[in-house]
Amino acid sequence: MKNNKKNMNTDQIISTSRRTLLKGAAASLGIAAASGLSLNLLTPDSAKAMPPVLPEKWDEEIDVIVIGSGFAGLAAAIEAKQAGASVVVLEKMPVSGGNSIINGGVFAVAGSPKQEAKGIKDSPDLLLKDMLKAGLDMNHIDLVRMVAEKSKDAFEWTESLGVKYQEQITHLGGHSVPRSCSTWNGSGSAIVNKQLEKVKTLGIEVKKKTYATQIMQEPDGRVIGLKIKEGYKFPDETSGQVKYLKARKGVVLATGGFSQDIYLRSIQDPKLTSNVDSTNQPGATGEILLEALRVGATPVQISWIQLGPWTSPDEKGMGIGYVFNAMAGFVYGVMVDPATGKRFINELADRKIRADAIIKTGHPAVTLADSQGVKQVPILDKILAKGVAKKFDTLDELAAAYNIPEKTLKETVSNWNTYLKQGKDAEFDRYMQTDSKPIAVPPFYACRAWPKVHHTMGGIQINTKAQVIGLDRKPIPGLYAAGEIAGGIHGAVRLGSCAVVDCIVFGRIAGQQIAV
Amino acid sequence: MKNNKKNMNTDQIISTSRRTLLKGAAASLGIAAASGLSLNLLTPDSAKAMPPVLPEKWDEEIDVIVIGSGFAGLAAAIEAKQAGASVVVLEKMPVSGGNSIINGGVFAVAGSPKQEAKGIKDSPDLLLKDMLKAGLDMNHIDLVRMVAEKSKDAFEWTESLGVKYQEQITHLGGHSVPRSCSTWNGSGSAIVNKQLEKVKTLGIEVKKKTYATQIMQEPDGRVIGLKIKEGYKFPDETSGQVKYLKARKGVVLATGGFSQDIYLRSIQDPKLTSNVDSTNQPGATGEILLEALRVGATPVQISWIQLGPWTSPDEKGMGIGYVFNAMAGFVYGVMVDPATGKRFINELADRKIRADAIIKTGHPAVTLADSQGVKQVPILDKILAKGVAKKFDTLDELAAAYNIPEKTLKETVSNWNTYLKQGKDAEFDRYMQTDSKPIAVPPFYACRAWPKVHHTMGGIQINTKAQVIGLDRKPIPGLYAAGEIAGGIHGAVRLGSCAVVDCIVFGRIAGQQIAV
Repeated sequence: MKNNKKNMNTDQIISTSRRTLLKGAAASLGIAAASGLSLNLLTPDSAKAMPPVLPEKWDEEIDVIVIGSGFAGLAAAIEAKQAGASVVVLEKMPVSGGNSIINGGVFAVAGSPKQEAKGIKDSPDLLLKDMLKAGLDMNHIDLVRMVAEKSKDAFEWTESLGVKYQEQITHLGGHSVPRSCSTWNGSGSAIVNKQLEKVKTLGIEVKKKTYATQIMQEPDGRVIGLKIKEGYKFPDETSGQVKYLKARKGVVLATGGFSQDIYLRSIQDPKLTSNVDSTNQPGATGEILLEALRVGATPVQISWIQLGPWTSPDEKGMGIGYVFNAMAGFVYGVMVDPATGKRFINELADRKIRADAIIKTGHPAVTLADSQGVKQVPILDKILAKGVAKKFDTLDELAAAYNIPEKTLKETVSNWNTYLKQGKDAEFDRYMQTDSKPIAVPPFYACRAWPKVHHTMGGIQINTKAQVIGLDRKPIPGLYAAGEIAGGIHGAVRLGSCAVVDCIVFGRIAGQQIAV
Repeated sequence: MKNNKKNMNTDQIISTSRRTLLKGAAASLGIAAASGLSLNLLTPDSAKAMPPVLPEKWDEEIDVIVIGSGFAGLAAAIEAKQAGASVVVLEKMPVSGGNSIINGGVFAVAGSPKQEAKGIKDSPDLLLKDMLKAGLDMNHIDLVRMVAEKSKDAFEWTESLGVKYQEQITHLGGHSVPRSCSTWNGSGSAIVNKQLEKVKTLGIEVKKKTYATQIMQEPDGRVIGLKIKEGYKFPDETSGQVKYLKARKGVVLATGGFSQDIYLRSIQDPKLTSNVDSTNQPGATGEILLEALRVGATPVQISWIQLGPWTSPDEKGMGIGYVFNAMAGFVYGVMVDPATGKRFINELADRKIRADAIIKTGHPAVTLADSQGVKQVPILDKILAKGVAKKFDTLDELAAAYNIPEKTLKETVSNWNTYLKQGKDAEFDRYMQTDSKPIAVPPFYACRAWPKVHHTMGGIQINTKAQVIGLDRKPIPGLYAAGEIAGGIHGAVRLGSCAVVDCIVFGRIAGQQIAV
């Protein structure tokens, strides 16, 4: 987020209103950072061992409260409302959309018409298999199967809201086949904005700057409401006005992950200190995850935290270099270790394998592609203008710029071109795109790659009804969760483009189930 | 445990009284299993969202209650008593010692006189480095450093209790140098029994068949006692008489891990169903871990569950074949994939690397050694008599017995012998023992290896004072933890012989701190 000003070039990625507001947030963060204030504050109320005393009077009453206004929260709100419940959505940040609105907007769909048109054979079973492989079979099988089986349905649901997708299908790392559909603007904002339109049409209020600080329970454990703060100014814990909201049917937790919660993530993986950057928006902190644990939700695989392998060390946060790496370097080009000039990993392996491999070299990798390989990069000019990717007339110049041994680099490219001709990557058995061409036509383009904290696979346990499972193995009455806060769907490693589908599938389920 | 009857041969590993009692426990388990009853029952009280109402009258009062009578619990009890506190130890099983008493009794010591005598250079820093490497740097650095720095002190403390160790030092997988000291009888019982003697001398009561079902707190969160059941008959949740024990200074949780808790372990790693065996005693279940979470302890890395790579698929539980694999096959011999006759992993890599590598082959591996390589296996005759390891006059016979291609097997052995001569393992860079000899002198011995659930690295968060850390990042007043229930010490992977030292170091700290 510190680099938000630079990100203002990427119109296609971040919508203007969001951008402007985030700029304000970034400024206040800057102040916070300068004053040494931690950005990952806990709800002070979590400190109490005893549950909160129920209020004598609720300030407001409604059927369903959804916390979080990303893909999952908005899907839950829409479904619950359509099922007849009254609904409110709470968002602690000054803008709607959470991390979803700065998400890359890529949706894994198994068996889409787009695939059929290109003769790509796919199925829910193959998507399931890919997710289990990446997840090291740590996935909760009933949950991941639900995502795989409903991917097409969830995709069509977003289309029914008016979301438009690009024609191309991308082949992301860890997927057996190309199956990932990008929104028209290469951003999750294309989905979130249509969800927000629907939310508005349905008359659902989204209360921004509204921070849930406590889950309120009946003595038998049933969740019946929230203590909140209205007018909350993230991350100032002293800001806001306390209110109590009663939820007649219950609460949906759709608060996302904790990639920006440095304390929480570094307890789970001590390597992930403040020295490691994150791709997430600053509000991706874990206070509601902790609050859910306080009321007895079962923790699942919280220590599995994903680093994105495609980010650039030459910009802050998610940035835009990842677009080059994910859509050109890894797919139509090669990635080399600049110290050797050689490839060192299957550029389409899953995120963990690639991130671990890059980190193991001890320095950023370099991806490269030629003029033919960059054709599908939607914002190439912006990436070049920002200086994150660079253009070269020859491979020699490219090698010199990154201090790569020229001879081995050229051998690496020549080998790859031979593999392409032979239809088989003799080194790493990487999948070859049907439209791949040899890396041969100048100019050549290159970008560095270095991992950043991107996704928290773990969270609280849910079942296939999106009910939160307590330490007693039973659903906590009135408590539902969907999206990144729920653990177990992705197991050890989440595949790219499987977050959006997870959020939409389980967000919708949560909304349908809570309204019953 | 189901194999307990067979284990009766292994006098050196399990003491007689323990064995007899466990046999009874195994019998009741058999009944439970036959009736379809789950062995990993939860405390029903964990179901309650609201904390227990404090009793009007406590049945007993004492300064310190320790739950669990393994290495950590007994160390805590001894230290607390010596510091002037009154202490009671609760043990839910009908015998003392928990999993520690069937532990292999191997103690990692950095910089011991035994090492100096053999010219082995070691240091706390090197032990720390090894633990961090195996832990994938996920270890809580302050905790693991404490273990490394106090390993020698903790070892000498056990010697001061009268524990005797063998002269040899073993080189276990993942350790840079030989540093692991085995108790005289090759079992943790040698340590536990001396701890129990000390406990008796000090006048500390160990209440067996006493099951802690609830942690009782003051409204401000301070832990002030326990709800317990006396006369509890594991695993019958309906058995026992409810009582309330007040703990004036607090409670030490030293209840071990949850390797036998099939529900809890399979939530964290769904591969680890009832189809996967465990090396642990049947009481290694997670109800106190869950109870600690209910009162607000922070979960740490609970999904990192270790499989032991050295167990045999030809016997139940820990068995005795592991002794052959760990002390001969992996150290003085080689391990091969029977399908190829070739080595496939550094036999001294850490437990995870080896277990994963064996599982990846899809079938049990075979380790082998010659007559010189088995000299340090203390119970070779018993392992052979049980049929878990086998003896052969020639490598051809050995190959035929396990259906290994003879030619490649002999090449593998010949290659190893060449590496030994050259002082360098050209394939996997395995450390070579100073007293290693070529695999050449018949008879030859072999044993199969297949992983079983062995240790749960994760648990609840503690600090260097063994205080349990709550979700609010602060110590929960009056609550301490030590041993396997505490998470973060070993990170992703625990090295062999680092459990005993962890338990003794943090058990002692917990006892010292709580008595203050």
